[in-house]
Amino acid sequence: MMKRRDFFKNGLLTTLGLGVMGSRPVLAKPSMYRGEKAKNIIFLVSDGMSTGTLNMADILMRHKMGKASKWISLYESNTVRRSLMDTASANSFVTDSAAAGSAWGGGHRVNNGALNIGPNGEEHEPILQKFKSEGKAVGCVTSVQITHATPASFCVNQNSRSAMPAIAEDYLKLNFDVMMGGGREFFDPEKRVDGKNLFGDFNKNGVQVVKTKEEMLSAGLDKPILGLFSEDGLPYAVDRENNEELKKTVPSLAEMTKKAIAALNQNENGFVMQVEGGKVDWAAHGNDAAALLYDQVDFDEAVGVAMDFAMKDKNTLVIITTDHGNSNPGLFNPGPKNVKFESNYETKASNQWILNQIKPDSSPSQIIDMIDHYQKVTLKNEEVEQLLSGFQLGSDGLYNPGNLPFALYAKILSNHNAISWAHTNHSGDYVELAMYGPGSENLSGMVKNYELHNFMLEAAGVERKRFA
Amino acid sequence: MMKRRDFFKNGLLTTLGLGVMGSRPVLAKPSMYRGEKAKNIIFLVSDGMSTGTLNMADILMRHKMGKASKWISLYESNTVRRSLMDTASANSFVTDSAAAGSAWGGGHRVNNGALNIGPNGEEHEPILQKFKSEGKAVGCVTSVQITHATPASFCVNQNSRSAMPAIAEDYLKLNFDVMMGGGREFFDPEKRVDGKNLFGDFNKNGVQVVKTKEEMLSAGLDKPILGLFSEDGLPYAVDRENNEELKKTVPSLAEMTKKAIAALNQNENGFVMQVEGGKVDWAAHGNDAAALLYDQVDFDEAVGVAMDFAMKDKNTLVIITTDHGNSNPGLFNPGPKNVKFESNYETKASNQWILNQIKPDSSPSQIIDMIDHYQKVTLKNEEVEQLLSGFQLGSDGLYNPGNLPFALYAKILSNHNAISWAHTNHSGDYVELAMYGPGSENLSGMVKNYELHNFMLEAAGVERKRFA
Repeated sequence: MMKRRDFFKNGLLTTLGLGVMGSRPVLAKPSMYRGEKAKNIIFLVSDGMSTGTLNMADILMRHKMGKASKWISLYESNTVRRSLMDTASANSFVTDSAAAGSAWGGGHRVNNGALNIGPNGEEHEPILQKFKSEGKAVGCVTSVQITHATPASFCVNQNSRSAMPAIAEDYLKLNFDVMMGGGREFFDPEKRVDGKNLFGDFNKNGVQVVKTKEEMLSAGLDKPILGLFSEDGLPYAVDRENNEELKKTVPSLAEMTKKAIAALNQNENGFVMQVEGGKVDWAAHGNDAAALLYDQVDFDEAVGVAMDFAMKDKNTLVIITTDHGNSNPGLFNPGPKNVKFESNYETKASNQWILNQIKPDSSPSQIIDMIDHYQKVTLKNEEVEQLLSGFQLGSDGLYNPGNLPFALYAKILSNHNAISWAHTNHSGDYVELAMYGPGSENLSGMVKNYELHNFMLEAAGVERKRFA
Repeated sequence: MMKRRDFFKNGLLTTLGLGVMGSRPVLAKPSMYRGEKAKNIIFLVSDGMSTGTLNMADILMRHKMGKASKWISLYESNTVRRSLMDTASANSFVTDSAAAGSAWGGGHRVNNGALNIGPNGEEHEPILQKFKSEGKAVGCVTSVQITHATPASFCVNQNSRSAMPAIAEDYLKLNFDVMMGGGREFFDPEKRVDGKNLFGDFNKNGVQVVKTKEEMLSAGLDKPILGLFSEDGLPYAVDRENNEELKKTVPSLAEMTKKAIAALNQNENGFVMQVEGGKVDWAAHGNDAAALLYDQVDFDEAVGVAMDFAMKDKNTLVIITTDHGNSNPGLFNPGPKNVKFESNYETKASNQWILNQIKPDSSPSQIIDMIDHYQKVTLKNEEVEQLLSGFQLGSDGLYNPGNLPFALYAKILSNHNAISWAHTNHSGDYVELAMYGPGSENLSGMVKNYELHNFMLEAAGVERKRFA
């Protein structure tokens, strides 16, 4: 039989549960916006985010930092509408980021690898070009190269996503208001094969080119900004936060987002921007748990910045989603009192950073000490030997120029950090989509990625015929 | 530039997208039910269903059968409210089915393995006992043993889920209205260690004991029903559907659900029932793609039966969810035109069935022919050799009495059927929850599993004080 104190406890729990719903902020009601048009749109993409990535970052934040992730707390408080999204491309159930971004950016599914160019060569006008021609300020910020597939998919037409030097030149012509991330090499006359000095060309167009966090913070809001904070992708958040130099010079996604909103919001006709947590995808390809969790946290802080703005502004549609799953990580066998998963709370370095420290003459005991120090995991001798044999074999995979044994290290770590992976590539999973603000009331419970293109145009009250 | 025909196409796509929303059935609006109380509750659990399981089954159904899964179509038509659920147990981020079911069934998180008995021995009255004492008809149907953790968690208090013979005796005392699934051995005097004849005891209590699909279909609706259709778990749906004898004798989950609703609905005070697709979890533990996909389809048909009833009845709360993720499968590298994933459309046997056919004297060519015939996958010679070496090694894992090399076979198949797995155990993922009918309007966007206990009591208008 149930005891009285149990029911008392029961009652409290229920009160707490309902309390969350009862106390949701009035601002947050999706129904508030019925029929209004969005002046601004902020489209946030955690690239390559499987469901487990979102969930594990939330569990980490609740238990390490004592608060839910912003994304999940928006569900708890019923602040957003939620949908599932089918992410297929024109030629596969499993999309790449170029085709996924093009579905949103151009309104049509294209083949994997293409940017707003269909299977028969048809060009689809990218959404930021459409909004720019409507008088809105437009821009992108990302933690990977600003010329990478996801930002590019909102901006340009290219047959191949790998044409990043050409995409940098496209950006010069487009004259967008804010473009920030990595990929400096595609603008640098010393690095470009054709020797073109895009830094100079952007300057001539009146664009402020900033290369450090400090320069970004002090850039004026009255002129366009091109921010290039590293040669290729930005460092992983966990590596940035644990390195004083990087912390000083490289902005977080939230910091870029805040600056971009401040600049774009100078335009009285409103703005449309994309925010990409691009290195979540790289971390998933690398089965790099530390990188994955903290870049998802980094993305979540950008969600917080966008939502803070939107809830005050009241004229901003916020879309929070991912372009596809990647590697379907999950939390498995966490051990007594979840102690294995808790090692992730203390980690100070990505697996990529760890593996890059290992040299041909590293001794097993040095490796054990280093991993214990930086990742709070104590490997056994035989595990280190196994790992070292992985270097000898060589490895490959996306975003892995050093041929590091990412998957092998992840497999070894899984017995210590309770995170396992199904693959090292994108999955065909339907993905999470959350929406807030004017227009969100029209979101269906299940959408196809390409439907979001016209959804955004309609939410902003842009006449589609204008583009016919 | 965008061409006119593209925009025309764009327009059509949008129309289709919005059309779904515009044409949603009036019956389906969650807001219709504001403030009303549920006479009946149907609680459907696809046990151990990771997000990828739901998604892949939906992709399979759309492309093989030309229609979306019932579950996802409820999202597309905005017929249900949707939530994420935190599934943790009292002692782990990763629950087992006993603790997960107890959270719903008893309203409190308990340690893994326990059934409605807390860490300090406190007993929580199971929800079907509460509803029975309120005058409602109650019952469970499942594709595993009726004494298994998930149905038991709505019915009994036991320190250990493995006490299945004792749980069968508990059921005798409880006198519930419909209990159907597998687990005949726990009722059979020939199989029970204590020799008790529970068949006879149930008969004496006026219960109809049915052992085949035909007996089930012809059972009267005026007396309680105990259905026991196999010794342990029921066969996988894909094996049942491809075996004439099994198809004749073993009901599908939808058929059991239909019969149970018809019987329970005789009670004028309403009913509460649990429907478990229990073998989805077993298939995930076995990384058995064919078993997983078709048992999820089997579950989905039961969802259809429940929803058809509820939408006509208008007094029924339907809850559709899972108790935890399992193995986080996903669709990866489907190949040109998705041809690898399409092999799953044609499969006629579970991996379990396939592996059970392999004998010490099976030749590689026999094995290749068999797998080609039953699973539309042509293995290479070296893959068969690898598989055979797995039998020699021996294997283990849950629900694997034959020590079959499930994970190895899944790994080999992944290059042919485009399905990969992160693990062979439960995950800590937050999971899908959908709700329809009276009370569903109170569902928050994120819930904890134990909150559903009082949620159900309140939805049905049951005074909680009554149980204090």
